[in-house]
Amino acid sequence: MAAFLMAAFIRGLDRDEVGALTRTMIDSGRRLDLAHMTAGRIDKHSTGGVGDKVSLVLAPLVASLGVVVPMMSGRGLGHTGGTLDKLESIAGFQTKLSLDSARRQLDEFGCALIGQSEEIAPMDRRMYALRDATCTVESIPLIAASIMSKKLAEGLTGLVLDIKRGSGAFLPELERGLELAKLMIDLGAEHGCPVVALITAMDRPLGRACGNALEVEEAIHALRGEGPPDLMQVTYALGAEMLVLAGAAPNTDTARRKMEVAISSGRAAEMFQRIIAAQGGDPAVVEDPSRLPQAREVEIFSAPRAGVIARVEPRAVGRGIIALGGGRTRMEDRVDPSVGFVIRARPGDVVRVGEPLATIFARDEAGIAAGMASLAEAFVISEEAEPPLPLVSHRVTRTGVEPYEAEPWVRTAEFPVFVEPR
Amino acid sequence: MAAFLMAAFIRGLDRDEVGALTRTMIDSGRRLDLAHMTAGRIDKHSTGGVGDKVSLVLAPLVASLGVVVPMMSGRGLGHTGGTLDKLESIAGFQTKLSLDSARRQLDEFGCALIGQSEEIAPMDRRMYALRDATCTVESIPLIAASIMSKKLAEGLTGLVLDIKRGSGAFLPELERGLELAKLMIDLGAEHGCPVVALITAMDRPLGRACGNALEVEEAIHALRGEGPPDLMQVTYALGAEMLVLAGAAPNTDTARRKMEVAISSGRAAEMFQRIIAAQGGDPAVVEDPSRLPQAREVEIFSAPRAGVIARVEPRAVGRGIIALGGGRTRMEDRVDPSVGFVIRARPGDVVRVGEPLATIFARDEAGIAAGMASLAEAFVISEEAEPPLPLVSHRVTRTGVEPYEAEPWVRTAEFPVFVEPR
Repeated sequence: MAAFLMAAFIRGLDRDEVGALTRTMIDSGRRLDLAHMTAGRIDKHSTGGVGDKVSLVLAPLVASLGVVVPMMSGRGLGHTGGTLDKLESIAGFQTKLSLDSARRQLDEFGCALIGQSEEIAPMDRRMYALRDATCTVESIPLIAASIMSKKLAEGLTGLVLDIKRGSGAFLPELERGLELAKLMIDLGAEHGCPVVALITAMDRPLGRACGNALEVEEAIHALRGEGPPDLMQVTYALGAEMLVLAGAAPNTDTARRKMEVAISSGRAAEMFQRIIAAQGGDPAVVEDPSRLPQAREVEIFSAPRAGVIARVEPRAVGRGIIALGGGRTRMEDRVDPSVGFVIRARPGDVVRVGEPLATIFARDEAGIAAGMASLAEAFVISEEAEPPLPLVSHRVTRTGVEPYEAEPWVRTAEFPVFVEPR
Repeated sequence: MAAFLMAAFIRGLDRDEVGALTRTMIDSGRRLDLAHMTAGRIDKHSTGGVGDKVSLVLAPLVASLGVVVPMMSGRGLGHTGGTLDKLESIAGFQTKLSLDSARRQLDEFGCALIGQSEEIAPMDRRMYALRDATCTVESIPLIAASIMSKKLAEGLTGLVLDIKRGSGAFLPELERGLELAKLMIDLGAEHGCPVVALITAMDRPLGRACGNALEVEEAIHALRGEGPPDLMQVTYALGAEMLVLAGAAPNTDTARRKMEVAISSGRAAEMFQRIIAAQGGDPAVVEDPSRLPQAREVEIFSAPRAGVIARVEPRAVGRGIIALGGGRTRMEDRVDPSVGFVIRARPGDVVRVGEPLATIFARDEAGIAAGMASLAEAFVISEEAEPPLPLVSHRVTRTGVEPYEAEPWVRTAEFPVFVEPR
């Protein structure tokens, strides 16, 4: 298998080979049988980024609108975070659900936030461990087969992909992201599962909070209608695709209005509470995010010079979280949920010397120092602004790639003033 | 390691990488320390072929002239035979010698014919098993590192390579053979071991006998001065390089005369007897080759049509030996030493219908039938002769590749009428 992975990594796999591999991986485990449910069953997958807490907002939001969301997530590795680690910063939250428990929860209220178990595509776990050991992780056909084998075992009627691009993305180049999107769309079609992919920006962190508990806090604000605009735009864009795929909205415009109501009415936040309670967590965090783990040391990072924020490098921020103890370099590393950053300044902001750019949340003074060093690297202050990537730039479906024609609300939306975590 | 082998197979290894790999493989085991010996210590390695019993003649011949020959050989696999299997057709012959026993034997009379033990480059054995399992055997850098790690651990002062080319060779194309030769010459130089390579023909079997005991018989005839001309020419060409490398002859012409005397005086045959006796075998086979294992069934293969022998395909002959039970498709297969072929007709011979072309030696009637089928495939009878490859075509050294300028004796030599095995 190690030799096969290296051959696939170097030579690639053709369409038939990826299809056969994906089928073999699915067949190595059980499937989540949801055929008895009449509602659409839709999951979302992101290729991962820094500050990407979209899943935490999207799953309860879309589920509160009657869509069944069996969301299977992963852990953080390298500079990107993972939804399971974020969820586990909620005291008591269990992500290790058996397929039978997940099914009962989906039957009851339509959402479960779970990790990959030994039941679903166990071959993928073993292959992933070998890919890690053989340096063959970054292979588009192997990534596509790995993701799709898990998703297709969930009994979905549709899947939405968030393919990140830019310096902080797993695959920074647009072309490679599109290649991955097309391959996963093809694999979905082969199994009767329609897949829509959006290409979104990861040349800067998404939202403000970066770090496990901090991101949960920001997600809670978002579910209450107080999320930062970029996070809301990406969440709404992905959510609209999910609702349309599920048949829960006739078009993305209607879908968006439904999502606004779900948030303003409190139903989306309520759904999150319900999920937390069902999975053993402390549902009171939704009312009172201060119940989340709190870092002992808090310090402001200020602008070392005047100028324009040219870039906020996600990889430097992500490495900073690892330096603080909030991320992993190896799968067996333990994660401190309390640490991280709140990034206040955005690319294009004009800043004065000494102006606060971010807050560091750390375990101790050494963590503060490490955080300062990481942020000094992350913030590139220059004479001129650099144009950031469009937040959502392309939409990819079976019929091809099209520029993302943002609904007027995405381009002009006036989001309410958001609440910054702490 | 499996992933590394596949990467090396597909991408190749550069010069430094092959060097590092070879050193690591040597250092995984012990070395044969022969530094106390004043005589030159020379081995020969062949890339293998059908009917290639050169080692059986060359080692005693060159050792009888005062050169120390610590010859480490392998087993047959696929269509090519292996020296160890041939030697083991002599009753009692032990090829599993410890390095200490081999050293004592070399001290005593200058020659040992041994297999790779766990002492020499054990990493190579493990890597070879993995290469076999991962289909990465046919990689020039991996082949070079494998061969040279074993040879360089023998404490040699020089090495002669017989790189076969043509349809029956492991690497049929001249260019690939030259590439392998140059790489092994470089690796030798890195370890202070001068290496000379000759490119020889394997577009037809070498000599007449093909099969373990039959080849030992032919080798004994050769040591007595009754070998077939092509076998003698290749043996003398390689032996002359060994003698010159060892400083035992000032030039190849003198070397050849010394070899002729060693054979005509009986000293070469005596040395073979001495080796056999020292390694537990029956030395009387040298006087009486009928003591070798005898096949129960013997049958003539006759020309199915009149014409010219255009080709005698070594791979078909080699597969025929496997079909008779005399070869291996897997390393763990047992080998019947008695079976094989004596090929009487050569490319270019004009033949009549029904003229005997070869003799089949088999265990039973089924073997005879299988042998007939293989030979029907091996002998290509046509209207016109096809020019065979020159027996020795190139000489490769550190300074480059040169056409093999055969000494007059190689081009014109009148070899005595040879004795055909049985």
